[in-house]
Amino acid sequence: MSKLTHSIRDAILNSGLSDSMSISFHHHLRNGDRVLNMVMDEIAALGIRDLTVNASSLFDVHAPLKEHILNGVVTTLQTDYMSRELGQFISQGNMRTPVQFRTHGGRAADIESGATPIDVAFIAAPASDCMGNCTGKFGRSACGSLGYAIVDAQSARHVVIITDELARYPLCDPSISETCVDQVVAVDSIGDPAGIVSGTTKITRDPVGLAMALDAVEVIKASGLLKDGFSFQTGAGGASLAAASYLRSAMLKDGIHGSFGLGGITGFLVDMLNDGCFESLLDVQCFDLKAVESIRSNPKHQEISAARYASPRAKSSAVSSLDVVILGATQIDCDFNVNVHTDSTGCIIGGSGGHSDTAAGAKLAMIIAPLSRARLPIVTDEVLCKSTPGSTIDVLVTQKGIAVNPANAELKRRLIDAGLHCVDIRELKAMAEKLSGVPERPVLGDKPVASVISRDGSLLDTIYNTVEVAQR
Amino acid sequence: MSKLTHSIRDAILNSGLSDSMSISFHHHLRNGDRVLNMVMDEIAALGIRDLTVNASSLFDVHAPLKEHILNGVVTTLQTDYMSRELGQFISQGNMRTPVQFRTHGGRAADIESGATPIDVAFIAAPASDCMGNCTGKFGRSACGSLGYAIVDAQSARHVVIITDELARYPLCDPSISETCVDQVVAVDSIGDPAGIVSGTTKITRDPVGLAMALDAVEVIKASGLLKDGFSFQTGAGGASLAAASYLRSAMLKDGIHGSFGLGGITGFLVDMLNDGCFESLLDVQCFDLKAVESIRSNPKHQEISAARYASPRAKSSAVSSLDVVILGATQIDCDFNVNVHTDSTGCIIGGSGGHSDTAAGAKLAMIIAPLSRARLPIVTDEVLCKSTPGSTIDVLVTQKGIAVNPANAELKRRLIDAGLHCVDIRELKAMAEKLSGVPERPVLGDKPVASVISRDGSLLDTIYNTVEVAQR
Repeated sequence: MSKLTHSIRDAILNSGLSDSMSISFHHHLRNGDRVLNMVMDEIAALGIRDLTVNASSLFDVHAPLKEHILNGVVTTLQTDYMSRELGQFISQGNMRTPVQFRTHGGRAADIESGATPIDVAFIAAPASDCMGNCTGKFGRSACGSLGYAIVDAQSARHVVIITDELARYPLCDPSISETCVDQVVAVDSIGDPAGIVSGTTKITRDPVGLAMALDAVEVIKASGLLKDGFSFQTGAGGASLAAASYLRSAMLKDGIHGSFGLGGITGFLVDMLNDGCFESLLDVQCFDLKAVESIRSNPKHQEISAARYASPRAKSSAVSSLDVVILGATQIDCDFNVNVHTDSTGCIIGGSGGHSDTAAGAKLAMIIAPLSRARLPIVTDEVLCKSTPGSTIDVLVTQKGIAVNPANAELKRRLIDAGLHCVDIRELKAMAEKLSGVPERPVLGDKPVASVISRDGSLLDTIYNTVEVAQR
Repeated sequence: MSKLTHSIRDAILNSGLSDSMSISFHHHLRNGDRVLNMVMDEIAALGIRDLTVNASSLFDVHAPLKEHILNGVVTTLQTDYMSRELGQFISQGNMRTPVQFRTHGGRAADIESGATPIDVAFIAAPASDCMGNCTGKFGRSACGSLGYAIVDAQSARHVVIITDELARYPLCDPSISETCVDQVVAVDSIGDPAGIVSGTTKITRDPVGLAMALDAVEVIKASGLLKDGFSFQTGAGGASLAAASYLRSAMLKDGIHGSFGLGGITGFLVDMLNDGCFESLLDVQCFDLKAVESIRSNPKHQEISAARYASPRAKSSAVSSLDVVILGATQIDCDFNVNVHTDSTGCIIGGSGGHSDTAAGAKLAMIIAPLSRARLPIVTDEVLCKSTPGSTIDVLVTQKGIAVNPANAELKRRLIDAGLHCVDIRELKAMAEKLSGVPERPVLGDKPVASVISRDGSLLDTIYNTVEVAQR
């Protein structure tokens, strides 16, 4: 017995996929992914239309989706993140139905609960056996964790594994088990290794970023959380990585033995694991080759599913045990609401990913952001899109001072006691406006192009179409 | 945040358990298990009644269940195996509702599908963190795999982990994830180490058993399946283990590199793994300390869930890739139907466990049994209980000859070509009767005491109450 199917086309035919169904993809191959485009091209060629595409994230490499949207092959998009090229296309109002943005945890919860059922999951796997036991740890397209795909595999009606490395049965330590796989397709290549690993995992050299990173670590120290058992997540942005680097030095200096590093994992967290700063890493996604190598070889570097990472429907998830998370922002308002969906023109350039999930779970949720970028203030009166509610954000670190959410009075007291430069967030806004001028609020259209769905399922915000200046 | 609850009693109260609900237990602590009795005693003390108990297997240590049955605390029993003491009690007609016997795979399927929903799963775990990430690999009550409990944890409405070793969060490599756990209770002891590991994992010294084991290996060799990629399961009975030992020698001699050993795992299969006879072991249950040590330290020795092992509802399970299984029998009839539920008096002394599952999946399903035991023929006209359908059994090996199921003509041809002593199963029956006399069919009552449910959900057989000779 074997589940091998000759081609993606045959797999689609065998799956019973037809008009108006829902299909899903994961983003562990990031901007190197070839699978989504291959599958969508075959689906389009078969004349199947009106599909819902549920993709954990979408990158520039997925720009061909634009064609499938314009042609009516795809009429609904559900995702947690969308990079600029597709974002611009969506913001221009090219879809009839608004994109549904969820968080990584919310996506997992809604798939598991059946709120967003998946008819066919197409899962790129760097290594799979003929029965569908598969992993991201091995193979020439190795990407490490397959955390986001695990939920799709467990819940979809039909599951197709697409691999470029067939392993002998039974594949050891599978991320996804044969129990939920219907078909396995071997293809020449599932991804471009150069695009699989992000180029963002470098520490900033910008002095402003480094200064903020230093302050971020001072905030963590002053918070009282940096002690044995400490747990930590940070993004892959330059200033966040610099903070991780400074944090490592602080932990080594003081001999602090943390419990776990969480999230999208970079080499910086791997170094911290190997140095004994953490007992283990819980990895839903690998950001660089060092992380891939570590999850393959170090049993303390553990793969977790999106549900274990952050599902609000799970009986608990890792974010609920998290001490500190460092996050970025494209905008933050005076109520600490954060925008990570649009740029300052209102154009979609991102999404929550795990932003809202970790902010909700962590004891200390910190935003690092400069006062302004490209002469546009980051701290504003009102964010163009509320991605993460201000009630879940504890502190904003900028190069001109640290603003604590008034709801966390104890933190503010601790930071002041530690001699840190705390300012009111409105002062930061005033400084930003003094530096860069009061920004003109972009004129947006009246067509909803995306809904931002909170991790608990409620509507958090609506994104409207952008309008070309020439057209006004 | 922590899910620690002070006591089993509090955990029961918090779970919302009430009359007529269904609760579940696993049997990885085997005859050393203390958890089922502790929980049942607390439930009885709380006055909760009319419960369904779904236990993957029941051993003599669980004899106190008799009291709870007589008192109306437990009114329905669902299990895959029941050892003699409880079996006798059930056979005497002490329960109003017949016991529901399933196979290990069928139990997993029915729990997952909701056919046998579980309100509260009580899961003994040799090590757990405060959020319920738990394992059987570590701790003073280490039992290795927790394969049968994984399905319960994933499907039960409420999950209580009971442990005698609290580990630091996050426990590495959990069998069961915090995502499905509601409460964690720490107790003094979940089990008696002396009873956790079975005493049955010794090779037989009986010359009849050794002769059958040698023939069993000749059958495997002649079948054409013993080549690179070979996969194998055997029980923990003495003759089966002897066969494993001879098989190992044969594989080493011929340099055969198999793919996997499956099932309840003993030290004999661990030796085969370490010798390179297999690429990996897929372990749903550890039978001895050597297996426990191996699953803890060797990444090629992998834990699998009951669903991955054998669920007929899974899109595939390991048994569907299995080449050869060696199984035992208390009786086998001339249509190759096998009884593993009752002894020759009709008294319940066992159950299918994975018997029917592996027989259905394996390319070659072999029964090893002597012609008679204690002067009672094993090969009979009609089995007292049809545990495993004869259509799934390929061959019977006895000390007096080998009988091939006529449905497998190719196997018969191969065995004859190899010069093996093949006889008609009716001849074996005649020999058995000549040796031990024609057995008197025991007189049974007319009260159904157990239903044997096939792995596909249909009723395979009904077991009736035994009648004391004195009462006739």
